Amino acid sequence: MKRATADKMESLAREYFAKAGIIVRPDEEIEVSDFGLNNIENVGLQLCVYINTERVCAKEMVLLPHQTCPEHKHVGDGKTQGKEETFRCRYGKVYLYVEGEGKKEDIHGVLPATKTTIYHEVTLNPGEQYTIMPGTLHWFQAGDEGAVISEFSTKSTDETDVFTDENIVRKTVFED
Amino acid sequence: MKRATADKMESLAREYFAKAGIIVRPDEEIEVSDFGLNNIENVGLQLCVYINTERVCAKEMVLLPHQTCPEHKHVGDGKTQGKEETFRCRYGKVYLYVEGEGKKEDIHGVLPATKTTIYHEVTLNPGEQYTIMPGTLHWFQAGDEGAVISEFSTKSTDETDVFTDENIVRKTVFED
Repeated sequence: MKRATADKMESLAREYFAKAGIIVRPDEEIEVSDFGLNNIENVGLQLCVYINTERVCAKEMVLLPHQTCPEHKHVGDGKTQGKEETFRCRYGKVYLYVEGEGKKEDIHGVLPATKTTIYHEVTLNPGEQYTIMPGTLHWFQAGDEGAVISEFSTKSTDETDVFTDENIVRKTVFED
Repeated sequence: MKRATADKMESLAREYFAKAGIIVRPDEEIEVSDFGLNNIENVGLQLCVYINTERVCAKEMVLLPHQTCPEHKHVGDGKTQGKEETFRCRYGKVYLYVEGEGKKEDIHGVLPATKTTIYHEVTLNPGEQYTIMPGTLHWFQAGDEGAVISEFSTKSTDETDVFTDENIVRKTVFED
């Protein structure tokens, strides 16, 4: 990803936080991830991590219209269970896909430019939330207006996330 | 506490959430606590628990102008550590008191109608946050406009909270 792309996405993310009435300080970092696919408007995520300790994590995430956070699961490291997370929609609409019944042809989201295998759809409007237990495959996409989502979870360890699409690199690499 | 008092506080809390731009659904419960002191405008708390599992808890809290959540600490149960919590101010101003240097005479909050022993002041404006580790005494009060505060924490177990004021009863008891 080019740094200019990350800067543009950060700026858009801050506009979404403002629209959602969420105050993020100018000195708080916005992480921009294209998951190594170099197609961020289709597959990507913008987030602000408030806190991430050994026991607790909280963050705010922004998805642009129909931008997708790709399919993955949180697994344990042998000592502790994988991450447990609750998504709460604050603004816009979220199409969340988790394991369960559901066909590819029936989803309301748009199939993203990354591999997906599960299609049980949960729609989250503002004020609605859903809890994902460790080891559960999931991916999510914003509706037409984009979305702002709070995540409440145990410790985030992005390095142990398991993605379905083998081309994904979670850590952002800049070309310039 | 009378049920009519709890209903009034719930209604005010919902107004604060709306002012803070936080969407709480009508079917989500607002807990109102007077801590058994029957003086809720002085000592009390209104909250909406989004999630509270074995591992993670998230809630939104409302304090009316100069209403105080009384001094307490979260201790372990012998098997697990006490609760770790991060407060993030969303609206208004919070005067948070934690262990450390600070004199009773110097605080910007108003001394509440409940016993306090610690006066190290941390002021939280919207977008500012503070993490309280297990076993740390703390109390907090809203400024002139009231406050809305998000709390991100490990499991909440109110029944193991240790309050400084021996007259406090955490579980709400209704007179009628």
